[in-house]
This record gives sequence, C-alpha cells and structure tokens, in this order.
Amino acid sequence: MNFFYDLDYEEGEVNALFKKIKSEYESEKVGYYHLLDSDISVAEINSYLPQAKWVRTIVVMGIGGSSLGTKAIHELLYSSNISNKSIRFLESVGPNAIKQVLTGIDFDETIFLIISKSGSTIETISNFKYVLEKFNVDFSKLKFNKHFVFITDKDSKLDKFAKSRELKTFYIPKNVGGRFSVLSSVGLLPLAILGYDIKELLNGAKLLRDRFFSFGYDNLIKKALYISENSKNNPINVLFSYSSSFKNFNEWYVQLWGESLGKIDIDNKRVGLTPIGLVGSIDQHSFLQLLTQGPHDKSVTFIKVNDFQNDIKIPEQSIEFLEDCDYVNGYSFNHLINAQCDATMQSVIKSGISVDLIEVDDFSEKSVGFLIFYYELLTSLTALALDIDAYNQPGVESGKIILKKKFRD
Amino acid sequence: MNFFYDLDYEEGEVNALFKKIKSEYESEKVGYYHLLDSDISVAEINSYLPQAKWVRTIVVMGIGGSSLGTKAIHELLYSSNISNKSIRFLESVGPNAIKQVLTGIDFDETIFLIISKSGSTIETISNFKYVLEKFNVDFSKLKFNKHFVFITDKDSKLDKFAKSRELKTFYIPKNVGGRFSVLSSVGLLPLAILGYDIKELLNGAKLLRDRFFSFGYDNLIKKALYISENSKNNPINVLFSYSSSFKNFNEWYVQLWGESLGKIDIDNKRVGLTPIGLVGSIDQHSFLQLLTQGPHDKSVTFIKVNDFQNDIKIPEQSIEFLEDCDYVNGYSFNHLINAQCDATMQSVIKSGISVDLIEVDDFSEKSVGFLIFYYELLTSLTALALDIDAYNQPGVESGKIILKKKFRD
Repeated sequence: MNFFYDLDYEEGEVNALFKKIKSEYESEKVGYYHLLDSDISVAEINSYLPQAKWVRTIVVMGIGGSSLGTKAIHELLYSSNISNKSIRFLESVGPNAIKQVLTGIDFDETIFLIISKSGSTIETISNFKYVLEKFNVDFSKLKFNKHFVFITDKDSKLDKFAKSRELKTFYIPKNVGGRFSVLSSVGLLPLAILGYDIKELLNGAKLLRDRFFSFGYDNLIKKALYISENSKNNPINVLFSYSSSFKNFNEWYVQLWGESLGKIDIDNKRVGLTPIGLVGSIDQHSFLQLLTQGPHDKSVTFIKVNDFQNDIKIPEQSIEFLEDCDYVNGYSFNHLINAQCDATMQSVIKSGISVDLIEVDDFSEKSVGFLIFYYELLTSLTALALDIDAYNQPGVESGKIILKKKFRD
Repeated sequence: MNFFYDLDYEEGEVNALFKKIKSEYESEKVGYYHLLDSDISVAEINSYLPQAKWVRTIVVMGIGGSSLGTKAIHELLYSSNISNKSIRFLESVGPNAIKQVLTGIDFDETIFLIISKSGSTIETISNFKYVLEKFNVDFSKLKFNKHFVFITDKDSKLDKFAKSRELKTFYIPKNVGGRFSVLSSVGLLPLAILGYDIKELLNGAKLLRDRFFSFGYDNLIKKALYISENSKNNPINVLFSYSSSFKNFNEWYVQLWGESLGKIDIDNKRVGLTPIGLVGSIDQHSFLQLLTQGPHDKSVTFIKVNDFQNDIKIPEQSIEFLEDCDYVNGYSFNHLINAQCDATMQSVIKSGISVDLIEVDDFSEKSVGFLIFYYELLTSLTALALDIDAYNQPGVESGKIILKKKFRD
C-alpha cells in the first residue's frame, strides 16, 4: 500500500481502534473473521465435489451478497481457469434477463445453486419457481435431486423445504452476513466446482488476518481513521481498478461499502460513505474529468496488478499519419495499462485529491483472497471508527413491507 | 415524468434558462441538437448497408463516447433484435479483455469499426495495431479493405490514414463531442448494421427536441434548475433503472453527466455533480441501505418500463415452507419488477430524499431515442444553469501528457 496523503495519527488513536476490532474479532458476534479457520466447510465441499463431476454448467440463483462475491472472484481468476465448466448468474427478475440466462441451458448437465441467507428472498424464490416449471422438475422423482443444491441459514424456510425433499444443503453461519459471506460456502461451493483452489483463497485471506491480529497492521488502521475522519468532506470513496477483470469486484465493493457504512448512528444521525467503482483505463474516458476538476468530495484508491503472465505486446508497427501513437510500440499491454494507472494517479494527486494505491501481485487465488479480506477488514475498521454497526441493514425493510402490501391489497 | 419534490420556480427563471438553451441550440457551437435533422447521415449509412450484408460480427473498437452509447442502445433493444449479427466491443487495453473479445472471431465474417473522434486515442490505435497483426492484414491487398471502417473527425490523422489506403470513413461533425455523439454515425452505423431502425431512433429524439424548442417543456427546465440549485447539498445524482437492460445505459449516463458537469466554473470554483447508476431490483440488495439511512447528499431518478410484450409469469406454485413468497404467484415478472420500483421509490421518498420518476413506454427505437435525448438535453440545461461548459474536458489532458512522458523518458 502506498499513501499519498498524510497518515499522521497518534499511537493512542491507532491502538484504540485496534483494541475495538480485536474484541469484535474475538467475540462470537461477527463470524466472517472465522470462516478462514473452518476447515469444516472446505472438507464438506471437497467431499461433495466428486458428486458434481457431471456438471458442465452452474447456475447461481441468488442476488446481492449471494452472487456478487462469486462473480468478482471468478472474473478475477478467469484467465487462469482451465476447467470445461461455465457459470451463469440468475439474479434479476427482469423477463429479458431471465430468458437470456436460461437460453441454451442443457438441464442434464446443469446444477442450480439456490442461495438465500434468509431463505425467502422474493427474487430468488420466484426465479426458483420459474426454473422448476420450465424444466418440469418433480422432486418426487429422484433423478432431479442432484440438479439442485441450496445454500442458506440452518433452519431457514428454504432449509426446511430442502430437508423435506432430501435435497443437499450447505449452510451459512448465522453470524455471517450476506455481504461478508463470499468466503463461506456461498462463494466456495461454486468456485470449487469451477475448479478454483478454495484452500488457497482462504490462505490468502488468512495471511492478512493473522498478520493483522498478531502484529497489527498500522496502515490499514490509519486508512480507516482517515476515511472516517474525512467522511464529511470526502463522503465519496472511489475505487479505480486498472483491469477490466475488476468490474465485478467493484460491484462487490460497492455493496460491501455502501450497505455496511450507510447507517443511522448511535446519536440518530445519518452517516455514510458512498462507494463508486471505476475501471481503468476505460473510465478515464468517462469519470476522470469530474475527479480532476469537480468538487473535492472524493478520495480515490487505485488498484494495479503486477501480473505479466498472460501478457501480449503492442506490435512494433508504425501506421502512417499515426506516428504520434508509436511511443507505446513494443511495450506490453499490461505495461501500458499500468503506466496509465500511474499517470492518472499523478494527475489526480496533482488536483488535490487524497489517493492511495493497492498493488496486487497477480491474479491468483491467494492474492484475491488477500484482497477480499483487505476490503472486509477495512469496512469493519471504518464502521468501528464511525461508531456504526457494519453488519445490519435496517433501511431495506420498509421497502419490503410496502411491496407485500402492493400485492395483498 | 413525475416529481416528488417541489418544482416551484418562477416563470422568469424558467424563461431565462429556456432563452439560454435556445440560443445555444440556434448557434453553430453545439452540434448534437442538429444530428437529428441531417438525413444525410442516415442516407449515407443506408447507401452503405448493402455493402455490409456479408457481416456476421461487428467489432466496435473505441472507448468512452465511441462505445458507451452504442452499447446502451443495443442492450435496451436487444430483446427485439432478430438479426443474425452479433456485436462485440474492444474498449480496454487489458490483455485478458483483448483476448476474450477476439476469441472465436472469424475474420472473414467480421467488420471492425475503428472509432475515435480525435483520431489518435492511444487505446484504440494500439488495439488497431494488434488486430492488424493478429489477422495479418495487408492493406495493399484489396480483400482486406471491406473489413475496416473508420469513424472520426474529418481530416484527423486517422482520416488521413484511411484516405491514403482508400478505406471507408464516416465522419463525426466537428461540433459534436464524443459523449454527445451516439446519434451520429458513431452509434447509427453499428446499430444500422445490426438491423435496428435508426430513423425511428432519431424520430424519438426529434419528438422531444421539437416539442421542447417549440413549446418549451417546463418540467425539464425546472428539473435542471432544481438539480443545479441543489448541487451543494445533493451533489450525487442517482439513476435507478428498473431493468437489467439498463446496465449500459447507466454507464452512458455516468459519462455524459460526470464529464459534462464536473468543471471549474467561470469564478475558478470547482463544481460538479457525481452520477451513480443502479439497476433494480438487484441494487436494492447493495445500495438501498445507504440511500435510505445514509446522508442526504443524493437525489434519485427512477426509470420504469411499461413494456409487457416479452413478459413471462411467476408460476402459480406454492413451495412447502415458502408460502410467504406466494403473494406474487401468477403475476408477471415485469409486474413484480415494477412493483419493486414503486415500493422502493416510496421508501426512498419516505426517508426524505428528492425523487423523480421517468416512465418509458417500451423498449423500442423511438422510446430509446427519446430517452437518450432527454438526458442530453437535461445535461445541457444543467450545465447552463451552473454556468459551466458542458462540452469540453480540460481535466483529462494532464494525465495524457504524464503518460507520454513515462514512455519517452
């Protein structure tokens, strides 16, 4: 991590926040910290995998925390994936989206993972009904069973249904919220079926966690302090990721950050930090102008990947009249994209904006696990610094009640 | 349009802004208003189309304003597309993205549209070189010519190159900026090859333009006044579109809004409105919490589509233990998604946020043209109300200079 702003916090303040998170870590209240230890879930998934050898297509049916993390990790690791399996995500209840996702599905080769922490997410259950109808599923016939696997809270209504039909279920620990659940079976199961090394994913996260809680990790604490103390004048936190493979990671970040840190605090005041995800260099052509000349209401974190494994080169070719563009000839595309990251970063710093940089070693399970946990930890730290509860979402209930009324009246 | 906030502006203020935009419309300075009249571009495209009958795959090579609008319109109209042609977008210089876009391309059936207003966009030209090398293109052999078409400013370096090789070029009028160019050949050519009715697209836009400039369209002016006058306390403008088909439209909006309205004003002050695009109902599960309980720094525009043409139904099926979710049974998915829009809107209004609603009739060329022009016009109006230039982007130049230095030093 490189910081291009002042992180001059006193030891007392740093230690106080560290103490807070350490006690949260050691409590039973927040479960995501401990997903990394439970070899149980890895063992359970590994013992299930042989039963899924026939699978060619995975359809994840889930929304929000049930899909965003898996999408993010799959996209980041995609170029290294050598399996012959593919994955689709049925999240929306839009008819066009539903039809598009299900087009060309060969039921015999498809597994549907129905993921809902509460067990009664209206979008997921409605889509589940549609799939049951479309493929004439009849759970009284045994042959259908292997095509449906459920991931939910133990004893949820979905779990009760699955149990009653003897369908396979994986559980999400009760103290792990949806947006912090990617390293539970929610993400691990589909990723393992796709052939990724989930043990390494957890190891990457564990590396950071154990380093942090054993030795402290000053910079992360100071970053959280900076973000929270500047939440009034920098209420927008931009994540500018330099690789198109981060599109879904950005969306995962947006949920994690927005839903965790937009809260009414103990003094009944509205607090919150607004996340924005950008992809470089593409979004230099859409958002950079606002960053450099718009109001100073944002901080920006750049992500750069130092992975030149699958790299390709810009040909040593000069096109007549376009010699102005020859300065990148012979360099690799990754070199260009990272140079664009550096150049943009410098110009954003110059315009007076608080910037920091995360450098990722490569697109490997270990690096991705580390990065996922980095953001989860930063979210928890920032919430503690802001004195809000990162793990609830009381603000979404009212819409659900209104929705039901619209149908029942 | 429905507004759930007070639009109580005096006639004088409304008229003053109308006068400003009318004079901009009548000047030669801003060209996008007049794209709708130039039957020339439609005629030119139509006369070219027979030469593109062999095309099965279109690869748009362009970034920012050269691709976002086409992507947006194609996604919105996709469900009505019955052509056997497909389109891909090569925007990024990330090696993974480049390889993914070009995987499986059959050169003989592919047309590459190289789109760059300036003619020397480093990403586009570098990708162009890569494509030339990958497919062993040699412009001295005539057979390659039909595979490459250029869209750029007249007399740009790219135009000069194309002319020197007798390659087909379409022009972007000089007074039409990239992010306002979707209704020029930039968007019209690929969309026409795909089989969309570009005349109807322009007609939809024209309908709004002519209504606005002939009779005035109070609400749009008042909305711009509201947004600009609240730019300090509501600096974030959220577009919450209820259909997954709006994902790319949201990105187009983000560029249009962010790049046009983030500026240093005549008093040397930084002004700017930050755009955020959300898709319903998915983002209820990621962003709604922040909207309802976070700080009051946002206004929200909802988009709802009243198109039930391609609709499908939620089966009349009750799943044991999940009877709680039966209240939507028998309704169409579109009904559900629109009810979710209404319910979310109500809960957001209740939390004290300024909300308005755009209802779109259907996913047709005409409706989409109308909506595109609606946002262009709103952007122009808001810039005039803020006293800034919507059409330049001086803030992105510094990064470009730094980039060149990084390679040349």
